[in-house]
Amino acid sequence: MIEYPSDVTLVEMLPRDGFQRLDEFVPTDEKVEIIDALSETGVDEIEITSFTHPKAVPTLRDADEVAQRIERHDDVTYRALVPNAVGMERAIDAGVDKVNALVTVSETYSEHNQNMTVEEILTGVEEIVEMAEGTGIEVEAGMGTSFYCPYEGRIPMEDTLSVVDRVVDAGVDEVTLATTMGLADPVEIEEMYTTVFDRHPDLDAGLHLHDTNGMSLANTLVAMQCGVDRFDASHCGLGGGVVLPDGLGGVGNTPTEDLVQMLTRMDLETNADFERVESVAHEVADRLDIGATSHVLMGGTVDRVLATVAEDNA
Amino acid sequence: MIEYPSDVTLVEMLPRDGFQRLDEFVPTDEKVEIIDALSETGVDEIEITSFTHPKAVPTLRDADEVAQRIERHDDVTYRALVPNAVGMERAIDAGVDKVNALVTVSETYSEHNQNMTVEEILTGVEEIVEMAEGTGIEVEAGMGTSFYCPYEGRIPMEDTLSVVDRVVDAGVDEVTLATTMGLADPVEIEEMYTTVFDRHPDLDAGLHLHDTNGMSLANTLVAMQCGVDRFDASHCGLGGGVVLPDGLGGVGNTPTEDLVQMLTRMDLETNADFERVESVAHEVADRLDIGATSHVLMGGTVDRVLATVAEDNA
Repeated sequence: MIEYPSDVTLVEMLPRDGFQRLDEFVPTDEKVEIIDALSETGVDEIEITSFTHPKAVPTLRDADEVAQRIERHDDVTYRALVPNAVGMERAIDAGVDKVNALVTVSETYSEHNQNMTVEEILTGVEEIVEMAEGTGIEVEAGMGTSFYCPYEGRIPMEDTLSVVDRVVDAGVDEVTLATTMGLADPVEIEEMYTTVFDRHPDLDAGLHLHDTNGMSLANTLVAMQCGVDRFDASHCGLGGGVVLPDGLGGVGNTPTEDLVQMLTRMDLETNADFERVESVAHEVADRLDIGATSHVLMGGTVDRVLATVAEDNA
Repeated sequence: MIEYPSDVTLVEMLPRDGFQRLDEFVPTDEKVEIIDALSETGVDEIEITSFTHPKAVPTLRDADEVAQRIERHDDVTYRALVPNAVGMERAIDAGVDKVNALVTVSETYSEHNQNMTVEEILTGVEEIVEMAEGTGIEVEAGMGTSFYCPYEGRIPMEDTLSVVDRVVDAGVDEVTLATTMGLADPVEIEEMYTTVFDRHPDLDAGLHLHDTNGMSLANTLVAMQCGVDRFDASHCGLGGGVVLPDGLGGVGNTPTEDLVQMLTRMDLETNADFERVESVAHEVADRLDIGATSHVLMGGTVDRVLATVAEDNA
């Protein structure tokens, strides 16, 4: 029998990866309401915003206010992306539970996305880890372009592993490899995680999934078989890098509702409640008027299909 | 390391599952041109039509003419669906290489779809096998509703296994379990194939995939880990049962281009040429005006993504 983790942790990316990617600024009230709804779905962790310079990501310019106004649930970890020490200061002031110290493996992407070299970013991670000491704030490192870069193409696995090593040396014990372009395949995922766990057997290594090539649920299965038990996803699949052209329609995240449906159907342990996840996905799609961007939103569940057929035959 | 089959056989379903499902009759000339284009993609087998009563499936009323007019390639197996002995006579006259003797596991679906009991269908399979003797025509049995039925819901695995046993007893050595509703999950796939291969170790058991819940590539991975090395898919994901309501938008087949992209990227052996598959998918989508119904059609390939980003930055 194929073995999967006994318990899977889910991280919701919509409020950061999704809101950042939309052309229009989602009003702060609406952001807060949506995050509050997400808090009721049973996801373990929510990346609520990014403490980036407001000019760099204007759609998230209300980061501090969002962090202040959301209702915090005891069983949810509220985290924020921090690109540097300045962002970390704001995160500390905002009292988040955790930060995502974003690192990018590709030198070209780092320049475009953060206007920094990879070395500068890694120095920033060291600072963030130091600043976190004594605050009770956890630090995890998201590793952008771990597999493909939109400018450089395939990233050599050694480059990604070197950056993982550096981040671990800096004192981070939780990293999340990101398929930023959504182009990784199951064999690349398996090679990567097998090697990462060989080098760092105790590392908490998660997977941040985009779904450009449609392989993200297959990648999830393979990653779970390698021992990965933490996944980032976004309701309605909403998300993508801010430096990517709008024409790149497919670079959404894995829809949380599709991922949770699969894990639930497989009887794997998660804290998420599929029906609530499904319902919030419909609510978000309606509010943001984004159409049916996931299989669940298109009605791809047993209950919906049977109900549609029954109605048609009535 | 996760093990996959050394060689994967691909069966193209567009001309039957796809054309049958469209509201409008695709003109015979266009059907023939599309099948001829599919013959150049390197797929191993093409289900070119269905020898069903023209009143039952009017969109395939030109079955005999299609079979006669297509250009046959030596390295492609041309097969047709036959629901009964009458269809088998037409298939013999048309000189196809192989027939798909369709069986349905669900009693209710059989009544709706074929107006026969499962027992009557199984008797039909016995007749079809007898009629094939000495003609050189191979017989495989597609097993509709092997996992879910749109009327009955989950089909007990024992029901599916009983029908497999009966078909094998009738002398069929190649069966294809179908996720007719596209609702099966990876654990159900694993349980089914593990059990099927336990009972019939030498059976050539393939998987016919629909993708309503978005898990079909994940299901492919799991099936391959169980030893399945033959998959049905359809260019542009076009397909679905004729008795299903139109509102059931998501019940397409797994797009051949998405499946071939995954297998090619994983370096698994297939005869298919991904670039040709991709090109034919775009051609079919344009000709039939069906929009971007797969990840590949949406531009979800490494080459397309890099080209889009490069153009945007030029």
